[in-house]
Amino acid sequence: MANYADYLLMWLTRQGVTRIFGNPGTTELPLIEALARQSQIEYVLGLHETAVCAMADGLARLTRHIQVVSLHAAPGLANAEAMIYNAAFSHSPLLLLIGQQDTRLSYERPFLGADLKDRIKPLVLDVWDITDPDHLLRSLRQAWARLQVEPSGPVALILPMNILSQSVENNEDPLWQAPVVPVRTTNQPSQEIIEEFVSLLARPIPKALVIGDRAVTNPEVLPALFRVAHYGHCDVFSEPFATQLTFLPWNDGCYYGRLPRQEKDLARRLAPYRHVIGLGTEMFRVFTRDEDHLPWWDQAQVTQVDSDVRYFHYAPGTTSILSSLDAFIIGVANDLPDGIPCEPRAVSGIQDLTRPRAEEWETRDGTEQFWSSLASWISPDMIVVDESISGQNALLRHLQRQEPKTYYAQAGGSLGWGIGAAVGMCFDQGKPVIAIVGDGSALFGLYALWTAAQYQLPVRVLIYDNHGYQILKDQLPDNPRAHSLLDIRGPTIRWQPLLAGLSCPVFESELPKEPWEFEKVWQQFISQRGPSVWVVHEKI
Amino acid sequence: MANYADYLLMWLTRQGVTRIFGNPGTTELPLIEALARQSQIEYVLGLHETAVCAMADGLARLTRHIQVVSLHAAPGLANAEAMIYNAAFSHSPLLLLIGQQDTRLSYERPFLGADLKDRIKPLVLDVWDITDPDHLLRSLRQAWARLQVEPSGPVALILPMNILSQSVENNEDPLWQAPVVPVRTTNQPSQEIIEEFVSLLARPIPKALVIGDRAVTNPEVLPALFRVAHYGHCDVFSEPFATQLTFLPWNDGCYYGRLPRQEKDLARRLAPYRHVIGLGTEMFRVFTRDEDHLPWWDQAQVTQVDSDVRYFHYAPGTTSILSSLDAFIIGVANDLPDGIPCEPRAVSGIQDLTRPRAEEWETRDGTEQFWSSLASWISPDMIVVDESISGQNALLRHLQRQEPKTYYAQAGGSLGWGIGAAVGMCFDQGKPVIAIVGDGSALFGLYALWTAAQYQLPVRVLIYDNHGYQILKDQLPDNPRAHSLLDIRGPTIRWQPLLAGLSCPVFESELPKEPWEFEKVWQQFISQRGPSVWVVHEKI
Repeated sequence: MANYADYLLMWLTRQGVTRIFGNPGTTELPLIEALARQSQIEYVLGLHETAVCAMADGLARLTRHIQVVSLHAAPGLANAEAMIYNAAFSHSPLLLLIGQQDTRLSYERPFLGADLKDRIKPLVLDVWDITDPDHLLRSLRQAWARLQVEPSGPVALILPMNILSQSVENNEDPLWQAPVVPVRTTNQPSQEIIEEFVSLLARPIPKALVIGDRAVTNPEVLPALFRVAHYGHCDVFSEPFATQLTFLPWNDGCYYGRLPRQEKDLARRLAPYRHVIGLGTEMFRVFTRDEDHLPWWDQAQVTQVDSDVRYFHYAPGTTSILSSLDAFIIGVANDLPDGIPCEPRAVSGIQDLTRPRAEEWETRDGTEQFWSSLASWISPDMIVVDESISGQNALLRHLQRQEPKTYYAQAGGSLGWGIGAAVGMCFDQGKPVIAIVGDGSALFGLYALWTAAQYQLPVRVLIYDNHGYQILKDQLPDNPRAHSLLDIRGPTIRWQPLLAGLSCPVFESELPKEPWEFEKVWQQFISQRGPSVWVVHEKI
Repeated sequence: MANYADYLLMWLTRQGVTRIFGNPGTTELPLIEALARQSQIEYVLGLHETAVCAMADGLARLTRHIQVVSLHAAPGLANAEAMIYNAAFSHSPLLLLIGQQDTRLSYERPFLGADLKDRIKPLVLDVWDITDPDHLLRSLRQAWARLQVEPSGPVALILPMNILSQSVENNEDPLWQAPVVPVRTTNQPSQEIIEEFVSLLARPIPKALVIGDRAVTNPEVLPALFRVAHYGHCDVFSEPFATQLTFLPWNDGCYYGRLPRQEKDLARRLAPYRHVIGLGTEMFRVFTRDEDHLPWWDQAQVTQVDSDVRYFHYAPGTTSILSSLDAFIIGVANDLPDGIPCEPRAVSGIQDLTRPRAEEWETRDGTEQFWSSLASWISPDMIVVDESISGQNALLRHLQRQEPKTYYAQAGGSLGWGIGAAVGMCFDQGKPVIAIVGDGSALFGLYALWTAAQYQLPVRVLIYDNHGYQILKDQLPDNPRAHSLLDIRGPTIRWQPLLAGLSCPVFESELPKEPWEFEKVWQQFISQRGPSVWVVHEKI
């Protein structure tokens, strides 16, 4: 007789789920037993929850299909939280199946027991704490519906082991068979709102258009976005914490790359504009605040368009439009006249901080040349997974992606995501994938390479090793004593053996000085059948 | 001019703190800068929060001195939570300094920002969310006081970076100089309670005495505990989740080792007793519940003595005594007559499940002999850190420790603690330390070996590699398909290079068949100057 774990898997199979990423413990044994009884869903083991969640997250971001993760009760949830935190910021549709102790023991403080709902709640869109087997299917359907509404993100089901191993008595419940109706969001903007917005676009004042990740989840809106930007003579920016950078090709003259993340730089960059329009963005979100607070919005009118009220800001002079982003962008574009020319530079004399400026290139010896070579060797269809951290500004100066869905950066700030996300994307078996990670990041997420070796996934991982937490050193430029506390040296990490331990081939080099040096390693690195790693050592 | 971070370190120095274990991020930069300005407190870097927290936890458990941990805001807290969960169950006195974003940004959903208080609260004894610099010192003093009351455990201070980097204006505050008065608990039992308990002890019915970790935190109570047990003709057990096993030497005839963790086995073991006395224990805490619920307390009178009301149980027929455990045990012992003989076996025919039974020894080929040899080679003064998981029962059959404070097992169930805890204990530079860990556990906590290599700490780590999550396979004895989902094979972990990558020497062998084979590896393993690892491969 089948139990609830069997039915759970059958239901997931019917929704198109073909794999569950997980790391198991005792509370997952009913699920493991059920997995062993069927052959539709593959169990992809990760050696640590960071790897497990990052793999699922990468695949979810690439495919926009819901990915399923199995976590082991209190310990497994704890280990996964850093990656769940990232997934919340990238709105990755993840269904987290969190194991739980036997509910009949819950009042006796059992081993592995804990109130998981309180702990996971701040990190997810919603959580269902199953305490009655009859609620499992209903909660599952609710969770699945929630995951389909953008902005999506992780949701959690807490699944006690005794409930999963209970026999299903009411298998005639029509809900087991019923399909989940895809959720269609209908908050279309009215014609009045569209016309008002179009007339704002037509005003001859300097306008900045700030595009958030959520506005370009669907790359099919890109042509419409072009039209809107060109019609309004807008200078276009990605939001400061953009993790996808391909909504407007770099060769479009209106696009100026990503906004800076320091409050001071952001204020300086946006100060010339009299109207700042944000589409699906948290453009007020910064990294550090400066002593002299300089709100950039004081002199500007601000228009925010978003599908979720959570992201609206309080700034004075702001109009907030709650609307499906796709519908809004396409609606506005369709309202515009034909034949709009691209007239770049709404603000003359704008300093382009993102595009390469020759005088800045050679700040650290040979560094800039390396990032430039790397960017030139990455083929246009290759998916770049970016957790380069201290290298990111240099990378983005050169890596000007033209193709949608070929660039994904870590969201949230929890290190350890990059390698796993790239490995997860390889399960899609489409385009080639390269992760570019710092040494600090790599160490947090190394184990995903074991899974890559197991499946012989052709993931490429470039580890840029500057022997410490360079991003922190960069923030304390004149403090060598503090730098010594931030070193990963004495002993240095010996990558070759370390990764050989996970059965992953490694190439190591110093920063290549000549193009032929670069090419030599690159060709070997890129042509391995399974995973491969290239560790580039910056001289210190 | 000094800032709050400087003063924080000065205050900690005055309490005797000499090191902070940490992994840094941007929110910790004020602390890092302050650390670089002083030389009293050492910053011990770990490459992952699991290592950081496990090191602090091990040292705290060994020394019973408060250890300080620095964690990086939302991501660092997340990564640390599995070890904080363990520390809560072992009542380790840990002061967690959790970084936080600039409070002036908190309403703008800044990068790295999150409400950390809600997340940490379920895991710690108490948390202080500092939002005003004037509260820092006061909260710190409260936290320090709380840490000194047993049962102790982790407490957290949330420290926004802008507060730490603010100049201290009121440095005349006398609280900066004032010592923290050690907290003395005074809940002594009355003479009436003691006499009542002594008369219960004298009743001629079968009695079990269950000793919890918290009853023997202070090994000086051991002689008193002996007297109580012998006077009452009690059979003595450690609680099911005991993590210290040295309160009565194994050669005392009253001691029968640790109680089993499965409800069924626990019920069977305690059923013969008419009076069950628990001292500082959660003796009702089990791992798994069986279909047929068999409460062992139905036929017995139960007496619980504890210093914390949280641990009292609801069972009928129970008397609960709230008292300092040390004071209670010593008070009762002093009330007893002199010259008590040890008369073992309150219950005749008791099956001893913990002591070796010959017929059980050779369950897996060569396995039992290995654990027996290992136990015989571990010197009496060597500290054993036990995260052997599926090997634990076999280990405990042979490792019958006589010395207090020479055995520490993982509490809570989050894997990855063992190596770090042993490394942390080596900072005490007293006795030799060996960690015994499974392959699954080792992978979760490997990075602590990098810190061990950095400080050349003479930690010994024995990794018992059965190529998978054996504890889970043991729970599904007849399910080879499920076992294949729980394997860490294809590829197997190659420990030699993996650990060489962290600059740690490794010896690898199969299960030694002969004593001389064991000795040969053991002698090399044990005589390294810095850290060393011995990986023993069980044949599958």
